[in-house]
Amino acid sequence: MDWEKVFATRSSRMKASEIRELLKLLDQPDIISFAGGIPDPALFPTQEFQQAFANTLTGDKQTTALQYSVSEGYVPLRQWIAKQMEGLGIPCSVDNILITSGSQQALDYLGKLLLSPNDTALVTWPTYMGALGAFNAYEPNYDRLIANGNRSAKEYQETAAEKNSRVKFAYMSVDFANPTGETLDRPGREKLLDLAEELDIPVIEDAAYQSLRYDGEAIPPILAIDIERKGHIDETRTLYCGSFSKTLAPGLRVGWVCGAQSVISKLVLMKQAADLHSSTINQIAIHEVASKGFDKQVAKIFTAYSTRRDSMLAALKEHMPESVSWTKPEGGMFIWLTLPKHLDGAKLLAKSIETQRVAFVPGHAFYADGSNRNTMRLSFSQANEETINEGIRRLGLLLKSA
Amino acid sequence: MDWEKVFATRSSRMKASEIRELLKLLDQPDIISFAGGIPDPALFPTQEFQQAFANTLTGDKQTTALQYSVSEGYVPLRQWIAKQMEGLGIPCSVDNILITSGSQQALDYLGKLLLSPNDTALVTWPTYMGALGAFNAYEPNYDRLIANGNRSAKEYQETAAEKNSRVKFAYMSVDFANPTGETLDRPGREKLLDLAEELDIPVIEDAAYQSLRYDGEAIPPILAIDIERKGHIDETRTLYCGSFSKTLAPGLRVGWVCGAQSVISKLVLMKQAADLHSSTINQIAIHEVASKGFDKQVAKIFTAYSTRRDSMLAALKEHMPESVSWTKPEGGMFIWLTLPKHLDGAKLLAKSIETQRVAFVPGHAFYADGSNRNTMRLSFSQANEETINEGIRRLGLLLKSA
Repeated sequence: MDWEKVFATRSSRMKASEIRELLKLLDQPDIISFAGGIPDPALFPTQEFQQAFANTLTGDKQTTALQYSVSEGYVPLRQWIAKQMEGLGIPCSVDNILITSGSQQALDYLGKLLLSPNDTALVTWPTYMGALGAFNAYEPNYDRLIANGNRSAKEYQETAAEKNSRVKFAYMSVDFANPTGETLDRPGREKLLDLAEELDIPVIEDAAYQSLRYDGEAIPPILAIDIERKGHIDETRTLYCGSFSKTLAPGLRVGWVCGAQSVISKLVLMKQAADLHSSTINQIAIHEVASKGFDKQVAKIFTAYSTRRDSMLAALKEHMPESVSWTKPEGGMFIWLTLPKHLDGAKLLAKSIETQRVAFVPGHAFYADGSNRNTMRLSFSQANEETINEGIRRLGLLLKSA
Repeated sequence: MDWEKVFATRSSRMKASEIRELLKLLDQPDIISFAGGIPDPALFPTQEFQQAFANTLTGDKQTTALQYSVSEGYVPLRQWIAKQMEGLGIPCSVDNILITSGSQQALDYLGKLLLSPNDTALVTWPTYMGALGAFNAYEPNYDRLIANGNRSAKEYQETAAEKNSRVKFAYMSVDFANPTGETLDRPGREKLLDLAEELDIPVIEDAAYQSLRYDGEAIPPILAIDIERKGHIDETRTLYCGSFSKTLAPGLRVGWVCGAQSVISKLVLMKQAADLHSSTINQIAIHEVASKGFDKQVAKIFTAYSTRRDSMLAALKEHMPESVSWTKPEGGMFIWLTLPKHLDGAKLLAKSIETQRVAFVPGHAFYADGSNRNTMRLSFSQANEETINEGIRRLGLLLKSA
């Protein structure tokens, strides 16, 4: 049958990412890859999970673990998260928290809740590629969010109005963002919240990397600032998306959304209709591992990743030509390179694979309009210091000859 | 902030089910519940899962199990499923299979792939409540699918055209359906496929209960008949949704869609954007438990549930007034009661809880138009024979006095 005839209009926005397709080809042992953006599995708390799954399947919890459970998520896990959130300046109750299958699902659900076709989503230029993927299914327009800048609410509104559209939310990863590694400072967060208030729209705060700070001082989440202003989480406009994927393990698919109860209760209905609930046993296991040693696990990651970041920054300084600049992240997994205007990250990748055997992600994939092709994202999460130095040396050779 | 102002139009279709809310209140120890519709946890292969999770977290698979994985799903599990499908008369490859987080997610994704607002979905009257919930997010109209009847393609088309709509798919649970327990016979499946061909639409075949047959002969899935007609799965229009929730365990959230590769590849993109992939560790554990003893597990369930079904049918015969009729399911978990026209299942439930302490699901919740209030669904999966007899005796008293 002719499937195109029965697919919904939204399906035209679901396209294979050329980058992901390309990266699939790179799984070869002699390639040094800075492309991944995934955690180093050597740092997973494997023994702790062994213990947790064994405990979950014996005694009291055994029946619960394999059975259907509520769409909101496992209560002890939501309690643990609520306590963590309080530590970040976000006093809240379990009713402010929905467990999702990774924070990716939170982004999908928020797109589904907020976006009608032709609505406008404000995203940074560049932004997390997976957020664009999630939102695309709901057929939005994108406009460039300048969080720390001087673009007025009126300008955003006018740009949207030109397309018969209206602005529905601002999405931003504010700590050690994927892909740039950059962090929005406190005044920037205040300004973003001012803008959202003026536009009367929600802010989606992507906090996937927030626990991975290696230096500098922690900045309160936007949701914390919003609560400072409004007095109570149920009065706020910020929807905080958290994840265990970068701290404990991504393979279990456990994340959460934290926000005003009126939104959470709507998302619970959405989740019930879409997949009933996230894996019961995984929520119980995550709860056990988190409550027994979350901070210890974060400290382990801190040590490994901060060393790798330092190595990569040192190697960049040593090997890059003067025409290349890069970010100096205080945490996370990524460094973002800006190349001379005439260079194209995608073309460079092809050449790099061929001549240097080094992989990275071309930067244009992170722009809603596919612009800024003279950029690239490097991840330092998966390679050791020696490999990092060698990979950056080769990349330097490539760029010097480009 | 005024959230209603920023919610997408689709959010108005996301409502709390009065039934689910009601059932939440019924979790009291002295109530005999036939409401649930969930598997008996005493039958879960708990020891097998203990072993499987332990194996998964030691040796080779340990790193894989906790890491991100591909959106398509774990290859050995897809291979195992492909072989099972072949046993059902559905020769296919791993490329015809996407792993989803339960078959509920498959329904959500198929709604997302196929439904633009105002499109028409054909569903039986009654149908699975959760399918309506999943589809509602994509703002369809519903029309009544009479699978084994004489309603012509033209009539369906005209009814849709009256609403400026067009028919997008036919959805049906064909084996021991939730909620009626009824099975569509082979001629009915042929007719449904004829109709779908004439309308040039896909068939969504919900096979969640298919493995739970207690007597009678297995009927080929619609997808198998479609392949017989077309010669190859990639030429078919049927999308088969399977699940491990009723056979192994629902808490792991593992199901699948099987169909033409051109649709599966589109669904893979959708899954990548929506939640990246289903839990890696759960897919590996399900694969281990399934490949070591799926048939043994199904036999265990067979013994327990078929005895309970027999008990409930016998008790209904003994205790129900003549004015009540019911289905005689050959498998699954449900029996469907039709009461005299003037009775209302929801009102009866309230009365039943108050006077008899017996719970069931009022039938109107399974109708897209909320009609046929003189019906109710009973589940026999969770109670022992004695409790079944006592519960049905009390329900008989209630109905005799109604």
